[in-house]
Amino acid sequence: MTISGMDTFFNPRGVALVGARSTPGFGFGIPLVLRREGWDDRLYLVNPRGGELHGYSVYADVAGVPDPVDLAIVVVPALSVPGVLEEVADRGIRHVIIESAGFAEVGGDGIALQEAAREVAARRGMRIIGPNCVGVVNTSHHFTSVEVIEEAMLGGTTSIIAQSGVFGAVMLDMLFQYGLHVSKAVTLGNRMDVDECDMLDYLAGDDATRSIMMYLEGARDGRRLKETLGRVASGKPVLILKSGRSEAGRQATASHTASLSGEDEIYEAVFRQTAAVRAGSLEELVEMTRVFSTQPMPRGSRLGIVTSSGSLGVLATDAAAAIGLEVPPLSEGSADRVAEAAPGWMNVRNPVDVGPSPQFPVALEALLGDTGVDMVLGIAVLPYFIFREVTSRGSTGHTWFGDVAAIRERHPGKPFAICAVGHSDFVDRVRELSGPQVPVFVSPEPAVRALAALTRYASMLR
Amino acid sequence: MTISGMDTFFNPRGVALVGARSTPGFGFGIPLVLRREGWDDRLYLVNPRGGELHGYSVYADVAGVPDPVDLAIVVVPALSVPGVLEEVADRGIRHVIIESAGFAEVGGDGIALQEAAREVAARRGMRIIGPNCVGVVNTSHHFTSVEVIEEAMLGGTTSIIAQSGVFGAVMLDMLFQYGLHVSKAVTLGNRMDVDECDMLDYLAGDDATRSIMMYLEGARDGRRLKETLGRVASGKPVLILKSGRSEAGRQATASHTASLSGEDEIYEAVFRQTAAVRAGSLEELVEMTRVFSTQPMPRGSRLGIVTSSGSLGVLATDAAAAIGLEVPPLSEGSADRVAEAAPGWMNVRNPVDVGPSPQFPVALEALLGDTGVDMVLGIAVLPYFIFREVTSRGSTGHTWFGDVAAIRERHPGKPFAICAVGHSDFVDRVRELSGPQVPVFVSPEPAVRALAALTRYASMLR
Repeated sequence: MTISGMDTFFNPRGVALVGARSTPGFGFGIPLVLRREGWDDRLYLVNPRGGELHGYSVYADVAGVPDPVDLAIVVVPALSVPGVLEEVADRGIRHVIIESAGFAEVGGDGIALQEAAREVAARRGMRIIGPNCVGVVNTSHHFTSVEVIEEAMLGGTTSIIAQSGVFGAVMLDMLFQYGLHVSKAVTLGNRMDVDECDMLDYLAGDDATRSIMMYLEGARDGRRLKETLGRVASGKPVLILKSGRSEAGRQATASHTASLSGEDEIYEAVFRQTAAVRAGSLEELVEMTRVFSTQPMPRGSRLGIVTSSGSLGVLATDAAAAIGLEVPPLSEGSADRVAEAAPGWMNVRNPVDVGPSPQFPVALEALLGDTGVDMVLGIAVLPYFIFREVTSRGSTGHTWFGDVAAIRERHPGKPFAICAVGHSDFVDRVRELSGPQVPVFVSPEPAVRALAALTRYASMLR
Repeated sequence: MTISGMDTFFNPRGVALVGARSTPGFGFGIPLVLRREGWDDRLYLVNPRGGELHGYSVYADVAGVPDPVDLAIVVVPALSVPGVLEEVADRGIRHVIIESAGFAEVGGDGIALQEAAREVAARRGMRIIGPNCVGVVNTSHHFTSVEVIEEAMLGGTTSIIAQSGVFGAVMLDMLFQYGLHVSKAVTLGNRMDVDECDMLDYLAGDDATRSIMMYLEGARDGRRLKETLGRVASGKPVLILKSGRSEAGRQATASHTASLSGEDEIYEAVFRQTAAVRAGSLEELVEMTRVFSTQPMPRGSRLGIVTSSGSLGVLATDAAAAIGLEVPPLSEGSADRVAEAAPGWMNVRNPVDVGPSPQFPVALEALLGDTGVDMVLGIAVLPYFIFREVTSRGSTGHTWFGDVAAIRERHPGKPFAICAVGHSDFVDRVRELSGPQVPVFVSPEPAVRALAALTRYASMLR
């Protein structure tokens, strides 16, 4: 199969929803979401009962669905799936997302049923995503086979590969809250056919995808995963959360997506030998992706810190040292530039502790322009009572911290992140100041961890 | 000095604010905040210019302040502080919070100035908090020497000891957002007199304080800290964020609160030899305190997990194994109890993956009542589109996840935390369901880390 074979899953011309249901339950909302996204004229509901549903007229069988249609979403009970696949193939549809559960993940008869479906797909030359998944999202095509909220369809540059449907769906629910917007998402379920390697190759060639987040319980084919990651991860970042680190975790996995996850050391070696970036936790996956999807590559590991809180500057310095970043002394030029307009009490060193002075933006610009610094972290802190008082008298966040987004635009060459600690309204203001190209964290350590991961990735590429 | 000596800082009968200012700047808002908290009749502003300020009449000198007054908050420029201390002592006030900066932390003349102030205090028998701090908060007395927002004054059971004023202030800004409410807070600054050990002893004897959070850049007296922690931390949890782990961090510290932080190994040994709990990061400090301030002690290290997402159950299991918690098989009784009303596809094991079934509360109760389980983590996940659809048709969070707060009340004996992943509105609903006694986390690993820290603490106490 060619890469364009995968493309039909994300860019179908017309879609048949086989097993469209009239009562709330799995898949009930799919027509509602596709209508919201403008698919009324390209979506065909199929159910033997016919009639009408959500204002669509329902086709009694797939054979009756009009052209153009090149993708089927199947939500019928597991037992009916092999038969439905034959009908879908008869209609000339070669791409199918099987969302139904009750296959290999339940063991016993489910395994045989999955094998029967696989046999039909192979014989009829079909490509299958699933079963036991919720399929795909493509924000640029406004296409989705899963019930997602409006905000999840705001286009972005991050793409997601997940095994579990629920996991993929909640990622779509939460990522936009962190300023992360998605290009494409796919949930693979039991991987009867299409697997993570197919998707990595597809997304590697997808211009809209700048970084790839992947949640994996186990590789379908370890050797192929290694080859694929070796190819893909050096072209664009692949951030991986791999569960089953522990024996207890592997046992829990077996009953979930029928994955054999294998010894963790093997995966660790695969990730180390490729440029894949492993996240240690769900939070870290999100943190890292926020930085990888917006920041340029650093040329080295030297971190410049500007902070309005000495304590948080120290904590960031500790975190940097613990993870292998340097916090070098300021160059003379930068020190002079910051000191020029600084109050006498200010210690002009790295971290630059500007205290309550207005030197925050001056110091940011000095460090972003300093050849002795490879990346910059700004830590914006101000007690909220004081922030509220001064903003009520006409000051703004700009008054304190400068126009961070504009500073980013003037100095686009280095990784740059902000940490804002305190009241959520304060953090929101700092987010506004910082714009979409500067990730804002709410404590210093995650920001430092993500910058360090980017540094390791950049050094792998060199 | 006796413990009641410290009490005057938190429970003064009357307060003189020396150096009250009429223009915005450091300390300007203190009278405004104290008025809001009901201190109009016990607050006396002092400034040589006299006149009126914020509707208070201003005393030209401390001598003129009427009774009762037993605490002075000093915000005059550093150079005037030694003289002001003499006047305060003449007025019979023995407790002083010096908020002014410009002492040992700036080096040079500042060191001499601090020594001069210290000499006055010692000679006149005064107790001093500061300089270079923002003093104290006592929510039950509605007293504060720092400009804090209303929400920070909602009473709770956690007390805070911090060196840096800004750090303490932003903790007060953010903690209530995590459901953490404060009893008392103190920022120590340069610790000319009162230090962390005085405060640990005071809070150890304070019935309103259930757990203590401490941010330390360096101990003033390492031997005394060890003795004090040995006494205090076995009575109530002391959670410590100690910066200066790295050489780079220690250098940054020196210029901040004039602390010599010393080798990190020494602190590590002190914490290990006492029951003090060290947090590795600011986030971890907050996470841990949320669990320590609400949860009973576990009797062992066996974690039961109930989840509506298999993936997140696996991630929680991995995190538990990595940090030394067990995820043991379910007892037969619990398994039967959960299986009784469960759909056929459900794997009744630990983690209990209830999927989209209504078995979540049943499984929680089974595990909370199971003698083979020492603590319980519930992972509540539901795609937001679906949650929004069903709640719009009259279902509630209770329908899916049960009345978590009531379950907690029925089973108060074990640590119990919830993790809710997804849309912030969904997380908010789960928070409401869970009530104030069940901390809700937004990803599984922090919840597990905090439960593990509680387990280690409990085993230290045994």
